[in-house]
Amino acid sequence: MNAHQSLYSILFLLSLSLSHQSVLRLPSDHRKSLGPARGRGEDDSLYCDSWRFSVETNDAGKWSTVPSRCADYVRDYVTGERYVSDSSVAADNALEFARAVGASSDGRDAWVFDIDETLLSNLPYYEEHGFGSEAFEETSFDDWVELAKAPALPASLPLYNELRQLNFTIFLLTGRSEHQRNATATNMLRAGYTGWEKLFLRGDSDQGKPATVYKSEKRSEIVSAGYTIQGSSGDQWSDLTGFATAVRSFKLPNPMYYIP
Amino acid sequence: MNAHQSLYSILFLLSLSLSHQSVLRLPSDHRKSLGPARGRGEDDSLYCDSWRFSVETNDAGKWSTVPSRCADYVRDYVTGERYVSDSSVAADNALEFARAVGASSDGRDAWVFDIDETLLSNLPYYEEHGFGSEAFEETSFDDWVELAKAPALPASLPLYNELRQLNFTIFLLTGRSEHQRNATATNMLRAGYTGWEKLFLRGDSDQGKPATVYKSEKRSEIVSAGYTIQGSSGDQWSDLTGFATAVRSFKLPNPMYYIP
Repeated sequence: MNAHQSLYSILFLLSLSLSHQSVLRLPSDHRKSLGPARGRGEDDSLYCDSWRFSVETNDAGKWSTVPSRCADYVRDYVTGERYVSDSSVAADNALEFARAVGASSDGRDAWVFDIDETLLSNLPYYEEHGFGSEAFEETSFDDWVELAKAPALPASLPLYNELRQLNFTIFLLTGRSEHQRNATATNMLRAGYTGWEKLFLRGDSDQGKPATVYKSEKRSEIVSAGYTIQGSSGDQWSDLTGFATAVRSFKLPNPMYYIP
Repeated sequence: MNAHQSLYSILFLLSLSLSHQSVLRLPSDHRKSLGPARGRGEDDSLYCDSWRFSVETNDAGKWSTVPSRCADYVRDYVTGERYVSDSSVAADNALEFARAVGASSDGRDAWVFDIDETLLSNLPYYEEHGFGSEAFEETSFDDWVELAKAPALPASLPLYNELRQLNFTIFLLTGRSEHQRNATATNMLRAGYTGWEKLFLRGDSDQGKPATVYKSEKRSEIVSAGYTIQGSSGDQWSDLTGFATAVRSFKLPNPMYYIP
């Protein structure tokens, strides 16, 4: 065994040990004295994993910004492979259900998609704004929306296209405002999405309503128009709960922000 | 710097690198050739984290046993610090809400608890049965229930006691059967739980109903009796959804089994 192989073996054994323990234990006094490395120790990693659990299950309820001790954790999560992997498994779950339930040939089986952090990813914006660790700035976000250059969330574009192939009628239901219709439609097309039936945005009478209420009302309109909402995909529980809910709902990950 | 300190520094740098990357990358060909170590590599760890996300958000829908590639992952999760930590954060969320909403002095504010994997932990049983990677065996589980020796889920006992202190009326709502009433009450008392208002178990007419329906019906009875169900805690979505739901619901972790 040469030196390279020997190092490789050590690293392999460490990886096994670490996949068991997640992160090496460090005495907390030692960790606290490390200055810039603060917030990357075991306690924070464990806590932030649990914080993310509570956010994704909706146990946390209303929250405003990512806890400061989890800022690095959330950055690493959304820019790393776990966000991609979690989104992909959610998309796989959705597609498996869609194939099992099927869509009738009359086009009356619907799928409702949220847009931000569901079909489009605003990571390029949040990268410049602390990945949810800074307070939300409406002005700069609206400027970003007008640029219409958000990329597709990687797992969602193939799901969207598969659902269309399966003959589901696609509805887009976003908390964005009516005055952002052009930028939103332009961005969707640029990102590769085509063929939706209708794009719902907040009109004047929808302003100020909780997203759960606004989105439930719009889903009711879809149902009243004769559709069966088989599936719904969104990164917020307010995309999925309330009334006129889908037969199955698919929660996408989003540890960056919360919309009531 | 002595050899000990030097090793410590190397381990610390590795821990930083790993908290960023989670697990070392290994060429998949190499990993696949490792025989007994199969299932502990990066791909499985990443996949199983995402599988757990899909289970805890209910994206996965109905599932029967833990995927075989995640058997070790689930064992490590439920026997390690992450399960304890996730349960504790869920309990903290519940208590924060309970304190904020308060309970009136008339005793009409209720909290509904599921029992298995919510107030009591069946880990001693599941340790002998593959932690959810083996098909559920009703006979051996019923034998375990009769022993009445399940310990309290560590995060739940202090929550339960705090809620009683805050004057919430506690209802226990379990999928266990009426013939298990004595064993269940005995086990609860042994584990340290006292002072519940009522223990609901499945009677003859409840057999065969999905848990969501059975539990919704029982919650309706609580509401009809004049209570406001402020909070509900359970490890299954079927504990928390349906009708007569609580103002706020708290999903506890459980990657071992699914109850529709």
